[in-house]
Amino acid sequence: MLKVIAEDFIRPEHVEAVMPLYRELVRLTREEPQCLAYDLFTDQRQPGHFVFIEEWPDQAALDAHCASEHFRRLVPQIDAFQSKPGTYTLMDAAF
Amino acid sequence: MLKVIAEDFIRPEHVEAVMPLYRELVRLTREEPQCLAYDLFTDQRQPGHFVFIEEWPDQAALDAHCASEHFRRLVPQIDAFQSKPGTYTLMDAAF
Repeated sequence: MLKVIAEDFIRPEHVEAVMPLYRELVRLTREEPQCLAYDLFTDQRQPGHFVFIEEWPDQAALDAHCASEHFRRLVPQIDAFQSKPGTYTLMDAAF
Repeated sequence: MLKVIAEDFIRPEHVEAVMPLYRELVRLTREEPQCLAYDLFTDQRQPGHFVFIEEWPDQAALDAHCASEHFRRLVPQIDAFQSKPGTYTLMDAAF
């Protein structure tokens, strides 16, 4: 099992513009057969800081997600509103 | 619902020493009546980077966790092995 935290930093004045893109990305990603969890959160203390918490069976499933039509179409549109590059953390259960 | 990411940075040479403390912290926290989720992960690319993903009904439940006997006893023992201060992010579901 692969756990992922992916963080985006959107310019606060563009949060409303980006929300429909995030909604579509979450909806279509959850339809991927290998997607175990794909939830989006907002940081209470930093407007524009969006955090995905994801779960995939393995790296190949994550790679397929990143190669999907919806990912390749929507993520560049989202990134057009970013204040700085996003980050991601790939994780295993500690025990 | 309150989602929390709490990140610890442990000196890699002390990862084995800290694991029993994390195991006890996770076991006892999951017994808290208001704990909805409390899972610990390790960063695949950064040894010693531990990430808790937590879920609580509200801030009061998180405050009660941080005031618990096991938190106040174990966290300072864990922090004795850290390479730099931990961080945390408090989050709401985006939609």
